[in-house]
Amino acid sequence: MSPSALAETSVDVLIIGAGPAGLMCANSLARAGVNFRIIDQRSSKVAAGQADGVMPRTIESYGLAQRLLDEGNQIHMAAFYNPSADGGIKLTDRVPGITAENARYPFEVTLHQGAIEAIFLDSMRSMGVQVERPIVPVSLEITEDVVERSDPNAYAVRVAWEFPFTPNTGLMTIRSHLDPAPGQAPIEIVNAKFVVGADGAHSWVRKTLNISMDGEQTEYIWGVIDVIADTDLPDFRNKAAIHSINGSCMVIPREGDKIRLYIQLEGKDVINADGRVDKSKMGPEKILEVARRSFYPYTIKTPKELDWWTIYIIGQRVASRYSVSERVFISGDACHTHSPKAGQGMNASINDTHNLAWKLAYVLRGWADLSLLKTYESERRQYALDLINFDKKFAKLFSGKPISKEYKNGVSHEEFLRAFQTFSGFSSGIGIHYTESSIVNSTYQDVASKLIVGKRVPPEMVLRATDSRPFNIQDLLPSDARFKLLVFTGDTSRASTLATLQQSADDLQSILTRYCAAGSITSVFDIISISSESKATILYNALPPLLRSHWTKVYVANINGLQDDNVYARYGVAADGAVVVVRPDGYVGMMRPLQKIEDLNSYFQLFMEC
Amino acid sequence: MSPSALAETSVDVLIIGAGPAGLMCANSLARAGVNFRIIDQRSSKVAAGQADGVMPRTIESYGLAQRLLDEGNQIHMAAFYNPSADGGIKLTDRVPGITAENARYPFEVTLHQGAIEAIFLDSMRSMGVQVERPIVPVSLEITEDVVERSDPNAYAVRVAWEFPFTPNTGLMTIRSHLDPAPGQAPIEIVNAKFVVGADGAHSWVRKTLNISMDGEQTEYIWGVIDVIADTDLPDFRNKAAIHSINGSCMVIPREGDKIRLYIQLEGKDVINADGRVDKSKMGPEKILEVARRSFYPYTIKTPKELDWWTIYIIGQRVASRYSVSERVFISGDACHTHSPKAGQGMNASINDTHNLAWKLAYVLRGWADLSLLKTYESERRQYALDLINFDKKFAKLFSGKPISKEYKNGVSHEEFLRAFQTFSGFSSGIGIHYTESSIVNSTYQDVASKLIVGKRVPPEMVLRATDSRPFNIQDLLPSDARFKLLVFTGDTSRASTLATLQQSADDLQSILTRYCAAGSITSVFDIISISSESKATILYNALPPLLRSHWTKVYVANINGLQDDNVYARYGVAADGAVVVVRPDGYVGMMRPLQKIEDLNSYFQLFMEC
Repeated sequence: MSPSALAETSVDVLIIGAGPAGLMCANSLARAGVNFRIIDQRSSKVAAGQADGVMPRTIESYGLAQRLLDEGNQIHMAAFYNPSADGGIKLTDRVPGITAENARYPFEVTLHQGAIEAIFLDSMRSMGVQVERPIVPVSLEITEDVVERSDPNAYAVRVAWEFPFTPNTGLMTIRSHLDPAPGQAPIEIVNAKFVVGADGAHSWVRKTLNISMDGEQTEYIWGVIDVIADTDLPDFRNKAAIHSINGSCMVIPREGDKIRLYIQLEGKDVINADGRVDKSKMGPEKILEVARRSFYPYTIKTPKELDWWTIYIIGQRVASRYSVSERVFISGDACHTHSPKAGQGMNASINDTHNLAWKLAYVLRGWADLSLLKTYESERRQYALDLINFDKKFAKLFSGKPISKEYKNGVSHEEFLRAFQTFSGFSSGIGIHYTESSIVNSTYQDVASKLIVGKRVPPEMVLRATDSRPFNIQDLLPSDARFKLLVFTGDTSRASTLATLQQSADDLQSILTRYCAAGSITSVFDIISISSESKATILYNALPPLLRSHWTKVYVANINGLQDDNVYARYGVAADGAVVVVRPDGYVGMMRPLQKIEDLNSYFQLFMEC
Repeated sequence: MSPSALAETSVDVLIIGAGPAGLMCANSLARAGVNFRIIDQRSSKVAAGQADGVMPRTIESYGLAQRLLDEGNQIHMAAFYNPSADGGIKLTDRVPGITAENARYPFEVTLHQGAIEAIFLDSMRSMGVQVERPIVPVSLEITEDVVERSDPNAYAVRVAWEFPFTPNTGLMTIRSHLDPAPGQAPIEIVNAKFVVGADGAHSWVRKTLNISMDGEQTEYIWGVIDVIADTDLPDFRNKAAIHSINGSCMVIPREGDKIRLYIQLEGKDVINADGRVDKSKMGPEKILEVARRSFYPYTIKTPKELDWWTIYIIGQRVASRYSVSERVFISGDACHTHSPKAGQGMNASINDTHNLAWKLAYVLRGWADLSLLKTYESERRQYALDLINFDKKFAKLFSGKPISKEYKNGVSHEEFLRAFQTFSGFSSGIGIHYTESSIVNSTYQDVASKLIVGKRVPPEMVLRATDSRPFNIQDLLPSDARFKLLVFTGDTSRASTLATLQQSADDLQSILTRYCAAGSITSVFDIISISSESKATILYNALPPLLRSHWTKVYVANINGLQDDNVYARYGVAADGAVVVVRPDGYVGMMRPLQKIEDLNSYFQLFMEC
C-alpha cells in the first residue's frame, strides 16, 4: 500500500492524546467554543488500572465533583503499620489522609482511569465532540516564518497522521469521509494554529520536538496489583502505609471492594542485566507473595480475579521546556514522571491543561496577546520541579527500611508521619502557588490579606442576597473562560458606601468596556458583589446596576450574624472593601482597594487586547 | 361503536392516576420488584403550573434530593410586607422560611409539577416501567366473597377501562397488542389483587366506592399566576407574604426567573349566582391588576408570557375513609383538599403512597399479614385531619385584613409570624408523628430518648469505621423495603462490651431467622452497627459477624472527639447501647435495650409472617 493524503484540513487547536491531560484540554476548549480536534492512537479508552487518585484540588475545581463523589471511593484516613515485637506488623497510628488547611473536600477520591476518562468523554459528547481514534501522527512541522509564528491566526503547525487499521465502529467512530480509497493507507494532513501534545510518558510530540527529560532514575522498584480484597487487615479501606522488616507496602482502597497494593520489590528479582524491568521474571502471584511477608500476621487470600498489575522503577524527570515558540505545547506525563504512590500524576496532568486551555481560548478569540501563553510553561514547569523535589524526599522515606534494633538509622514512624503531613498541602494540590507574572500581581496583597495572590480561591460560604441561599464561593467561579471580579462592597446599608460604590462602578465600567470591544462586559467578565450588610436588611437593588447584572450576582457575607466568622474575616478583607480579580482557572490574579479601581487597567493591559 | 373486551388480564397492583401520589407508589413498587401497572387518563404529564412546592421532609427521603436540588429553586427566607404609613406596603421582617428544628434541608424547593413527575418517570423508565395512557376506567368491583377478600393472593378487584382515543405514540405509548379491532371501542378487563386510586381531587375511584369527603368550603377566593417576574420588590426571590390594606398576596419564587403570585380576590368579582368560580369573569390581566394594588409602591410589569393561571375557592375536606376492605385504597388529592399556600398538597400526596407502598410489598411477598394495610388509613388519615386543622388557622390569618387604624381587630404581623413559625414543624413534614399501632411501639422510648418512636429518623452524621468516611444516617436508611436495625453497640474497645454484643447477636440471629424463611437475613433486614469507640482505634472486624455483614455496615459515632457532640448524645442513647428498629419508610418503629433483644420478636410477630 502506498501512502496518500486523503484530505488536507485546518483546525485552531489539535490535541494529540486523549488521556486525562488531553481530555481536560478538550473539555475546556469545547466549553469555551474553541474550534479543535482531539486524536488518540488507542482504539478505546483505558479499561482498568493505571492512574486512579484524584486529589482535593482536582475535585474542587472543574465541575467534576458530583460524578467523582457518586462513582469513586473516598480515602479519609491514613493508617500506619510498623514492625511489632513478634516480627510482624502492628497498627501504630491513624491520621487524616489530608491535612491541608482549607480543603473543600478533605479526602482523596480513587476511581480507575477509564471511569475518569468517561466523565470527560460524556461531558464532551453532550457538547457534540468526540475523540478521533485510532490515529497515529507521523510528522509535525512548525513554520520557520517568524511573522507567521507570531501571528495567532496563522496555521503555523502542520501535522500528518495515518489510520493504523480499520476504524473502530463503536461509540468512538471517526468521521466516515476519512475512509481510505481501496488499496491506499489513509493519511490526513492538518494545519493547526496550535498543537497540544498530551501523549503520555513516551510522548511522540516531545520526541519530535527534541525536548529532553531532565532528571534520573532511582533504585526503587515497585510492583502494583489491583484486586478484590479478602484480607483481615482492619485498615484495608484506609490508605495504609506498611513498613515491615520484610519490606514496605502501601494499600490504596478503590471503588467497590477493590484495593490496590504497592509492593516494594528487590532489584535482583526483576531487573535484567541491561537495567530494565523484566516482567516475565515475576508475575502477580509472586508479587502477592512478597506482599504477604509484609502483611504478616495479617493475611491476604489469593484473589479469584486480577484486575491489573505492573512493575516499575521510579524515574524522576521533568521536560526541559514545555513548548516550542508557544505554538506546540506538551502537557501531562509528557512533561513529568515520578513515583505514583503520592497520587500526583493524573492530578498534575489535568491541572497542566486546565492552566493552558483558557489561555489558548483568549489568544484565539483575539482577547489576549500571544505572550500570555508563555505563562503556561513558567507556571506549570515550576510546579513539576517542586513535585519532583517533593517526590524525592517522600519516595526515599517510603522505600527506606523501618527503624529497628538492627537498623538504628532506619526511618522512624515519627519521621515518616511528619513528612506525610508536611507534604499534604502540596500533594493535595491546594498549596500550588504561582509566582509573580503578567497574570499574577501581588501588589496590594494586604487588601485581602488571607486570599493569597497566585493561589486558588479557598472555599468559603456566602449567602445570595436575594434569597438567602447559601453558596460556596468556589461554585461562583466556574471554569467558563471568564475573569471573575469579586467586589467586596463593604456595608451597603450606609449611604456613604453606596456613593463610593457608584464611583467605583463608573470607573470599572469605563475600564472593562475597553476589553470588551466584541460584546457585552458580561461575556468577558463576571462581576460578583459581596456585601457585609445583614441578610435581614439588604436591598439588592440598591447597588449600582453594573454590580448586579442579574439577581443572582449579589451576595452577603454574614451567614450566622457573627462578625468574625464570615468571608470578609476569613479572606482578610477590611470593612471598606476591595476588588479581587480571579483568573478563569480559579487562581487569584490581583487585588486592589475599591478606591484604586483604575489599577485594574494596568493589570489587564499587560496581556489583554483593547 | 359497540364496546367489546380486548383482553382480560391480571396484575398484583393496579394504580389509577399518574400524578405525584400515583408515581411515588409506582416507583416504590418497582423498586420492591412488585408486579403492577399504572394508568392515567391524561395523554401526557403535566406541562406547567399546578403543585410546585417540595417540603423539607419530602426532599430528605425517597432519593429525590439530588435532582430536586439540581433543577429546583430553593426558598430559604420568608419576608413580610405590611401596610406603611403612606398607604402602600413596607418590609417589616425577614425570617427563615423553615424553622423546624432538625431539618436536613432547611428550605422548600419549588419546581413545576411536570418536572417533578419527570423525576419519577425517569426513575421508572430506568427500571423498565411506563405509565399507560390515555386510559379511562369505567367500572370497579370488589369481590363479595369474604374468603377471597381476606386472601392476599386473590384477585379480589375487577376493573374495566377503555381507551378514549388513538393512543399517544410518543414516549408514553401503550402496549401495541391493545389496539382495537376495527369498528370497536377497546376495553380491557383487569383482575387486580389491590387497587390504588391516585386520581386526584375529583377521584373516580373515590366516587365509585361512594366514599364521602367530609368538611366544608371557605369564603376565601384566590387567583394564581405563574410569570417571569419583572418587579422592583426586593424580596421577589423570597417567600413574600404581603398584607396590604388593599388585600393579601403571596410571592413564591420558582425555577429560573419565574415567580408564582397568589392574590386574594373578592367573591363578587368571580363567583356566579350558583356559588361557583366563573373564570370568564376575570382573566390574568385583571388578577395582575389586583396584585398591583397590594404591591404599591412596588411595581410589577406586565409579563410577555404567562405560564399558567387559575382561580379557586379554598375547600377543606378529608375523605371519610381511605380504603374498602384493604383491597382498594385512595391517596393524595383523592383524600384531602385544602389551601395550596402552605405548600402541603403534593407533599401529603407523595407521603401517602410512600406510606402505603412498602406495606403492599410486604403483604404481596407473603412477609406480612393483610392487617398491616389497616395502618395506612390510621396513619395517613389522622395526618390529613391535622393538616386541615392547621390549614384552617393559617388560611384565616393569611386571608384576614391587616391590623390598622380602621381595623383594630385585624391580623397583626406578630400574630401571623407566630403562627407561621409554630406551624413550621408540621408544614415542613418533619413533625409527622404516627401514633401507637402494630408497627409503632413506644415501650422503652427512653433507651434512645431523643429518637422519637413514630417520627422519622432525624439527620445525624456518623463515620464509617473502616474508612472514616462521613455519612448522614438518613442515607443509610434508603426506602428499599427493608426494615433497618440500628445497633448502638456501646464502646467496642471493651472486652465486656464485645461479650455482651456476641450474646445480643446470637439472640438477634435466632429471632430474625424466623422471619426470613424465604431467604437470607439481609434480604429482609439491614443491620447497621454504630459504635461509640474512637475512629482511631476501632477494629471493625472485632464485632460479631452478624453486626458487620459487609465492611460498609459498621460506623462510629465520634466524629470530632467531643463526648456530647455525636449521635449517641443527640439521639439520647446511653453508653450501654440500644437497638432501634426503623421501618422501611424511615419512621422509628420501636427500640429496646441490647439486653432485651428478645422483645423484637413480639414486635415483628404482630404483623409479620414466620
